[in-house]
Amino acid sequence: MEWANEIFSERALNLKRSEIRELLKLTSRPGIISFAGGLPHPDTVNKEVMLKLAEHVISEHKNTALQYGQTEGIPELVKQLIQLHKELDGIDVLPENMIVTSAAQQAIALTAKIFLDYEDEVLCARPTYLGFLQAVRSYRGKFVGVDLDPSDGIDVEHIERIFKAQGRGRIKYLYLVPDFQNPAGVTLSLEKRIRLIELAREYRFAIVEDSPYRQLRYTGENIPSMLALDTERNVVVTLYTFSKVFAPGLRLGWVTGPKQVIDKLTLVKQPADLCTSPFAQFLAAHYIEDGHLRNQLGFIADFYRPKQQAMIEAVERELGGIPGVSFTKPEGGMFLWIQLPEGIDSGELFQETLKRNVAFVVGSAFDPYAERNNCARLNFSFPTVEQIHEGMKILGECVKEMVTKKASA
Amino acid sequence: MEWANEIFSERALNLKRSEIRELLKLTSRPGIISFAGGLPHPDTVNKEVMLKLAEHVISEHKNTALQYGQTEGIPELVKQLIQLHKELDGIDVLPENMIVTSAAQQAIALTAKIFLDYEDEVLCARPTYLGFLQAVRSYRGKFVGVDLDPSDGIDVEHIERIFKAQGRGRIKYLYLVPDFQNPAGVTLSLEKRIRLIELAREYRFAIVEDSPYRQLRYTGENIPSMLALDTERNVVVTLYTFSKVFAPGLRLGWVTGPKQVIDKLTLVKQPADLCTSPFAQFLAAHYIEDGHLRNQLGFIADFYRPKQQAMIEAVERELGGIPGVSFTKPEGGMFLWIQLPEGIDSGELFQETLKRNVAFVVGSAFDPYAERNNCARLNFSFPTVEQIHEGMKILGECVKEMVTKKASA
Repeated sequence: MEWANEIFSERALNLKRSEIRELLKLTSRPGIISFAGGLPHPDTVNKEVMLKLAEHVISEHKNTALQYGQTEGIPELVKQLIQLHKELDGIDVLPENMIVTSAAQQAIALTAKIFLDYEDEVLCARPTYLGFLQAVRSYRGKFVGVDLDPSDGIDVEHIERIFKAQGRGRIKYLYLVPDFQNPAGVTLSLEKRIRLIELAREYRFAIVEDSPYRQLRYTGENIPSMLALDTERNVVVTLYTFSKVFAPGLRLGWVTGPKQVIDKLTLVKQPADLCTSPFAQFLAAHYIEDGHLRNQLGFIADFYRPKQQAMIEAVERELGGIPGVSFTKPEGGMFLWIQLPEGIDSGELFQETLKRNVAFVVGSAFDPYAERNNCARLNFSFPTVEQIHEGMKILGECVKEMVTKKASA
Repeated sequence: MEWANEIFSERALNLKRSEIRELLKLTSRPGIISFAGGLPHPDTVNKEVMLKLAEHVISEHKNTALQYGQTEGIPELVKQLIQLHKELDGIDVLPENMIVTSAAQQAIALTAKIFLDYEDEVLCARPTYLGFLQAVRSYRGKFVGVDLDPSDGIDVEHIERIFKAQGRGRIKYLYLVPDFQNPAGVTLSLEKRIRLIELAREYRFAIVEDSPYRQLRYTGENIPSMLALDTERNVVVTLYTFSKVFAPGLRLGWVTGPKQVIDKLTLVKQPADLCTSPFAQFLAAHYIEDGHLRNQLGFIADFYRPKQQAMIEAVERELGGIPGVSFTKPEGGMFLWIQLPEGIDSGELFQETLKRNVAFVVGSAFDPYAERNNCARLNFSFPTVEQIHEGMKILGECVKEMVTKKASA
């Protein structure tokens, strides 16, 4: 189709292949110790449970599970999710506050679609989740990036200054991952959560709380979710996924929030894919109902805790003494974030570590302005404890070599 | 969220709940003979096969099937689809010509997204598929509607006149369902297929061939697909679904077309949902590989043929003699289309038949301009042969009463 570029939409012409995703393909070659991915460990998916659930759903629910379903989600799953909110958040929600989605990524895209016109703005952390950046770009929205404090999350005072100076302007919503953020592993403090909800009410914007990792806490104490803190149910739209606590391959998640937002999400989801797989929804409904999710949350915490602790230890040991280096100490999730001394380019570091079979993701991938080249995201959910120690030793050596080289240059 | 309407995007504010989908909810009440739905019959989904496939995929492929997959689709399925194109269309396609999607509806939405900027135009039949209309509206595209000839499909001479008069203008693509079209059941002739491809090359637009029903032929001879006729592989983008030949509840389909289009679809699919369920993809790959699809195509034709024939017979018997009434005689698919005399409002007819427990969908739902109130879509895949005869008797009586009333008014 030689005339393709004459008929593509502007948004399609503007989209480029993600360099990061191309790099990630490199990092899957055999022999690599990869801190680059963001995958749940396959050993956390229980084969026996899955066999049992599939057998049950096909035998007992074939005619509904394998048929089209309503856009909002099947009632059997919604009922379980309402119960789950009660148990985990201590809150009551109604079916009208919920929509089932094809995992959280779809919800990220649909929230962008219902809020953003061309050049409308969305507030987000620097750094923030790559899939969010891509979704907003695909609707040609613009970012207002705000720094992330490694100890307590996004800089709320900065957000307040923005609104005081300009009012809401073209800002439609704030996107954030309050618990064990991707990519930095940082958790938002209770004070900041409360203050952000006040600001949203005052300046009349929405808060999209992306919550994929909340159930993956290995140490420390839970902080109430923003959804739970939004007692008037008029500010916070929370995105959930089954990818980290059941199986990513089912592509299943849900959204809980104000009815007006759920209504619009339903209207844009219908033409997007009619409905999310009722088969996957039935599997999840029984996964919750039969108590497997509850067991799994304990299992996962025990499974990932040694990896998290190994990663924090190894980073402290290998990088702790280097001037200008800092890093986060996540209490859960899958990622730890490193800041290297100014002038150390993480792209160059990546080339060096890759030569020695260690991979990570460069920090600029997660920056809304594609800047901040001296940062790195390290995943600890996929590698073994041994790989974490070995890989971090190599990464530490490479950093030290670059720092020495730079000092002598 | 009292300020919701201040922050929604224009496109979200413009979307309305589909009256049709709301009406469809009415038609699912017990005791109704419904010609309104568009569902494959649940008896066409084979429980034993599904159990066997699920058991195999979970046992043998757990670590890939239940993990994230690449956006383009899993290689195991793509390999089977290439083989399928060879067998069914007699054509060779490459992996770069294909992308797996979350059923055809997602492909309809993503093609709209890569082609349409605000107020760009898309050519389509009057009537055409409702889900296509909704997808284009969600991107605020505009329709150029062209009449459908009941005997051989869309009016190609009209299309030619449009391009001769204005050139391509803002028209980006032609959307059509060449085989057993939804809603009218009409099939596009070979001559028209060939001519449309010539026109697309001359005026440099794309053809989106939506092909959900092609394998559901009960009588007559196959006409080559537009994909097969596009031997230069530079015009036609074809959308496929597993919903009618395997199970709608898996939400699985694929697109085959020019590499440039597939590349853009991949770029917009990534932020839309990362990937389609690898679990569903593995099920489908084995469904094809183990020969179940081949068996199913024969089974489905035998299963639906009596319903198709009963519907054509019943429509001829009950409506054939009424002046001003015409109808299509589909050789496959799921739908038959009725045109009522001018001035007979199918919305009023719907109210009458619903009182007597018979439902259908009013034709204006399928019109890009929401006009043409004297038409009706009848589904024959879901009701039994007895229900078809009984329901059509009632529908015929209602039409006759309305015609008589109108004549005496």
